[in-house]
Amino acid sequence: MEETRQSTIMIAEENLLKATADIILTGGIVVTMDEARRIIENGAVAIKGDQIIAVGTADQIKEEYEATEVVACTGRAIIPGMVNAHTHAPMTLLRGLADDLRLDVWLMGYVMPVEREFVTPEFVTLGTKLACAEMIRSGITTFCDMYYYEDDVAQATVEAGMRAILAETILKFPTPDAPSYEISLAYCREFIQRWKDHPLIVPGVGPHAHYTCPPEILTACVALALEFDVPIHTHVSETALEVENSRTEHDMPVVPWIRKQGVLDTKLIAAHCIHLDEGEIRSLLHAGAGVIHNPTSNLKLASGVAPIQRMLEIGLNVGIGTDGPASNNDLDMFEETRLAALVAKGFSGSPTAVPAKDAFAMATCMGAKALHLGDLTGSLEVGKRADLVVVELDLAHNTPRFQRNPEAVYSQLVYASKSSDVRHVLCNGQWLLREGELQTLDESSLKQQAQAIAGKIDRFLEAREGDVLSKLVAIGGLAQEESFEVQVKAQLDDISKILAFVSDADNVKITKSSRYRQYDTYFGFVGRESGQVRIREDLYLDNQDRPTPHTRTRLTLIGPAHEREFTHSIVLNRSRFTAKGTQSVRFYREYFQPITIHEITKLRYRYRILYQETDFAINLDRILEPFQLGYFVEIKSRTWSQSDAEKKVALISTLLRRLGIEDSQLLKQEYDNLLTSS
Amino acid sequence: MEETRQSTIMIAEENLLKATADIILTGGIVVTMDEARRIIENGAVAIKGDQIIAVGTADQIKEEYEATEVVACTGRAIIPGMVNAHTHAPMTLLRGLADDLRLDVWLMGYVMPVEREFVTPEFVTLGTKLACAEMIRSGITTFCDMYYYEDDVAQATVEAGMRAILAETILKFPTPDAPSYEISLAYCREFIQRWKDHPLIVPGVGPHAHYTCPPEILTACVALALEFDVPIHTHVSETALEVENSRTEHDMPVVPWIRKQGVLDTKLIAAHCIHLDEGEIRSLLHAGAGVIHNPTSNLKLASGVAPIQRMLEIGLNVGIGTDGPASNNDLDMFEETRLAALVAKGFSGSPTAVPAKDAFAMATCMGAKALHLGDLTGSLEVGKRADLVVVELDLAHNTPRFQRNPEAVYSQLVYASKSSDVRHVLCNGQWLLREGELQTLDESSLKQQAQAIAGKIDRFLEAREGDVLSKLVAIGGLAQEESFEVQVKAQLDDISKILAFVSDADNVKITKSSRYRQYDTYFGFVGRESGQVRIREDLYLDNQDRPTPHTRTRLTLIGPAHEREFTHSIVLNRSRFTAKGTQSVRFYREYFQPITIHEITKLRYRYRILYQETDFAINLDRILEPFQLGYFVEIKSRTWSQSDAEKKVALISTLLRRLGIEDSQLLKQEYDNLLTSS
Repeated sequence: MEETRQSTIMIAEENLLKATADIILTGGIVVTMDEARRIIENGAVAIKGDQIIAVGTADQIKEEYEATEVVACTGRAIIPGMVNAHTHAPMTLLRGLADDLRLDVWLMGYVMPVEREFVTPEFVTLGTKLACAEMIRSGITTFCDMYYYEDDVAQATVEAGMRAILAETILKFPTPDAPSYEISLAYCREFIQRWKDHPLIVPGVGPHAHYTCPPEILTACVALALEFDVPIHTHVSETALEVENSRTEHDMPVVPWIRKQGVLDTKLIAAHCIHLDEGEIRSLLHAGAGVIHNPTSNLKLASGVAPIQRMLEIGLNVGIGTDGPASNNDLDMFEETRLAALVAKGFSGSPTAVPAKDAFAMATCMGAKALHLGDLTGSLEVGKRADLVVVELDLAHNTPRFQRNPEAVYSQLVYASKSSDVRHVLCNGQWLLREGELQTLDESSLKQQAQAIAGKIDRFLEAREGDVLSKLVAIGGLAQEESFEVQVKAQLDDISKILAFVSDADNVKITKSSRYRQYDTYFGFVGRESGQVRIREDLYLDNQDRPTPHTRTRLTLIGPAHEREFTHSIVLNRSRFTAKGTQSVRFYREYFQPITIHEITKLRYRYRILYQETDFAINLDRILEPFQLGYFVEIKSRTWSQSDAEKKVALISTLLRRLGIEDSQLLKQEYDNLLTSS
Repeated sequence: MEETRQSTIMIAEENLLKATADIILTGGIVVTMDEARRIIENGAVAIKGDQIIAVGTADQIKEEYEATEVVACTGRAIIPGMVNAHTHAPMTLLRGLADDLRLDVWLMGYVMPVEREFVTPEFVTLGTKLACAEMIRSGITTFCDMYYYEDDVAQATVEAGMRAILAETILKFPTPDAPSYEISLAYCREFIQRWKDHPLIVPGVGPHAHYTCPPEILTACVALALEFDVPIHTHVSETALEVENSRTEHDMPVVPWIRKQGVLDTKLIAAHCIHLDEGEIRSLLHAGAGVIHNPTSNLKLASGVAPIQRMLEIGLNVGIGTDGPASNNDLDMFEETRLAALVAKGFSGSPTAVPAKDAFAMATCMGAKALHLGDLTGSLEVGKRADLVVVELDLAHNTPRFQRNPEAVYSQLVYASKSSDVRHVLCNGQWLLREGELQTLDESSLKQQAQAIAGKIDRFLEAREGDVLSKLVAIGGLAQEESFEVQVKAQLDDISKILAFVSDADNVKITKSSRYRQYDTYFGFVGRESGQVRIREDLYLDNQDRPTPHTRTRLTLIGPAHEREFTHSIVLNRSRFTAKGTQSVRFYREYFQPITIHEITKLRYRYRILYQETDFAINLDRILEPFQLGYFVEIKSRTWSQSDAEKKVALISTLLRRLGIEDSQLLKQEYDNLLTSS
């Protein structure tokens, strides 16, 4: 204000005319979010070019300025454009692709396969524009992004007229826009060079996270960020697991680890920061880092709740982000700000935690500081960029307005306003939304194009997930190999005869023997044609049946029915698609969503034998859970042709005889029901 | 559907004409929320009078029905009207009155004084209509209320055209509409008799809570509810404290206690239910009670989070409520439903907890069941009342729509839709909102009237809270008595001389002596004229300075300055407004919002003496925290007139001499700074 007055007076003395502005917003309650948190009832803001040139009462501004465009804002609040400090904008196109899943299922089962297939420059251009349409409607003028093809994201953002920090994602795996991280880095360098002086865009480096970026990648990212003095935007301590892993692998939690790689020497934008200790919070403070709180995403994925109250207490700059629209599922900063205020109270147990005023600061001025853009945006002050939003307050859901305490407006904005109350948005002095009408984007065309892509993604996923096998395949690593085996099964009270038989070198040669506890989980589905998915975890035992550290987990898709049945209940099974199990049973349960689940634990002695120069496996099982009396015996052999199968069936018949197993002890029909095993 | 088809076919056979409906909504995705949770793409709903007469595909309905009014709903979802299962509707007029406060401060410092002054039939009529305007806009057709003057609430609700359960509040204190609970009960009986057969209104009994309703009130409420077979709507286990108190007072938690009073024999609607154990949850299940979850209110007031996941697991009917708009601060069921889904995940640590489908059920069909209205509303089924809402899906923030899984629409509705996406609302077959236009209420007039009341409330609170004293008075129980005392203070290394003096009966007669540890908290404010508020907690000690159970807390408003100064640093203080302290220091801190806070702990030996037949108090203090060497001595006496004061000043001067206290040891100016005591 001091500045404004002085300059205004100078102009007045020079030519006795009012100073000229391009736009004056007037008559609203101006919520400045400046250092003093001034609130001006019946206030006004004058804008010239891309800047705010005056903030004051409507009378003051009217007296001192004239403008080509004067916009009445009676009954409305004039607020700084909101700052969405962490998102993945192009993922609007994956909004609602799959929900209510664990992060890993969601990522590996859905998002990553779709991204591998669909993410192109055209995809990110469309996705960014759709995101901008939504963000502008929600009163956001600045966002901070991390995705692929950020050059195209930048182009789309500039067309939309928004301000953004755009960080190109870098990680150790191949990405949609680069087969290796070296190529990502080279892309990022060019991207930074091209955009670093743009008035709206701040390019940045986006190492995805410490656990996807080994030290050589992190240090290369740091070097690049320092070379051009651009921010690093990365995920920090989003899950308890990643912190635990960091402690195990590096003997320290995440913040010290990334500090060791130099990450804290940069203009750091650290998203999430949920599982931090006091020392880490202080490290971030001393590094001048910005922390970005993403309450919806953190709740939805059950990642935890960031210790925001403590961070604010010690003076860390905390912004608020929507995170990507595929995990939120929208880009609504009013919802996010409200939730930040609510969750802090609910989790701290104190109803005075993060009051509306603080939450609104996080969404505006403090968010801008967290993005290292505090000198440009986030508050209504002379000299700052003209990033402004006008919010209707005179609505049923925001009536009445108590005025004895001017700060009640924070309550109105945080607890009762909605993104749909946003009437005008200006960014860098340009109109982006006017009386609810988007000015820079053709929303209807964007929606249409987005819907067309969604249709293609639906068809792609239908093709992959049409049956259980496709779903299994979709998560990768499954060998689509087929094999056949002949097999017979029996239930016995006593196995001494069998043990004696296999121990006698005259009968057989044992080529391999092992013992393990075997945990089987069977997923059943609607319709026999889907078959069953079995997850088998083997815990190997020593000679005294004591556990060893050796384990193995395999996934198997078991075909729906026996291919053929021979004499003596010997069956030919067409088996099986198997894959190494790399995820938890819970993961698979959520991913496959079976109709039935059966669990069986057995103690298995397994013998590979040569009998009549033919390879057989004999499994001697005791069923521990659900407990079964007696023993189960399986004799099986792989087979590759019909004649081979028949030869082996004959051999099995003689084996059964020599082992003293009678037909009455053989299991076939009962087997599925009894044990749901095979 | 089976029913519909049959009846349709019958009509077709009889007269070969299409059946007639009043309204057909067609072409939208119909989210029925029936038992099978049918979702009908390109579906339609036919309405006749107050009922739904057909639900099916657009083609089916077109073939079988004709209607005077056919409303195209392409790109939109047709959903059951949402059920706001716990609120205090007229409190819209107190929305944003005061926020970010503890429940007790908010209630006793603001809401209750305002309610005592302002709540009239006109107030609740206006407040209810404003609430209805907001609720209709947010897609709500049914709400469950608890407030005062429910007869007027009912009248306003019927004018608005909404369905509601309205419970008249009954509690042991005088209320805005009744000086005693007997009168509330009589009012409630008449209210029930008047409304019990109304097509939109279900009257109910609203015992506020177990802790405000002693057994005689609860049992009287139960008797009334049973007599007319109407619901009881009450608050259950909202805070940990109330449960703790119940355990202390009744030796059991809340649910068994209210069961003992017969409350579980009624159609119970139990709001909050946050702090319940497994047995209590099962009791509610067996009683067929409805539980109402209020996530925003529970987070905002930091009351805790209800174990919703467990309740749903065992089959309890859980509805969702906004709670009153004074503590939310809006009546937005989209926000509330979304939050219910998010909070369950965040607090359980499982991202699969309360998926969108379940959250949406809580907001519709299950909410209706929780209100014992499951046969009337909550789903789109033939024979149910025509309570429907049409939600626009074709919006930037809800684009794209993935269609391979029909249930993705739940995700869209819960995670991305907003109340502002509601286009049409029908309740009981009547249009309440049409293309976003309210049909039954004059919103602009309601807003204007609400604002006028808010202005009056502002002025009322300004008058009460204009200075600290008013604020102190506003919370009640403060005696506005003034008194004067003369006083002198000294700092000594040794008090043996004083102890010897007061022990010698020749000098003085001790009329009373006591010892206590004294915890003083001083609140300072901007401007000397506000004075200081002191909260003094005395813990009485025995002869060996050991704590006794005897304590006392007083609040004192200490005037800003000494009234007059005499010789020897003897001062006349105009003191003090005192009140019994009934709340915690934290309460007062939040209520008064002081600029400075000082805390002092002392050990005080206090003697009331007669010296020269005049009553004096001598305090011998050791300052424990912040620790001070030596002793502080205060000599004071109440005074009532100028001449009396001067006489006592002379006596104090002689006392000082006899106690050997020199002028250099006297404290005056330093005292405030040193100890901020008096």
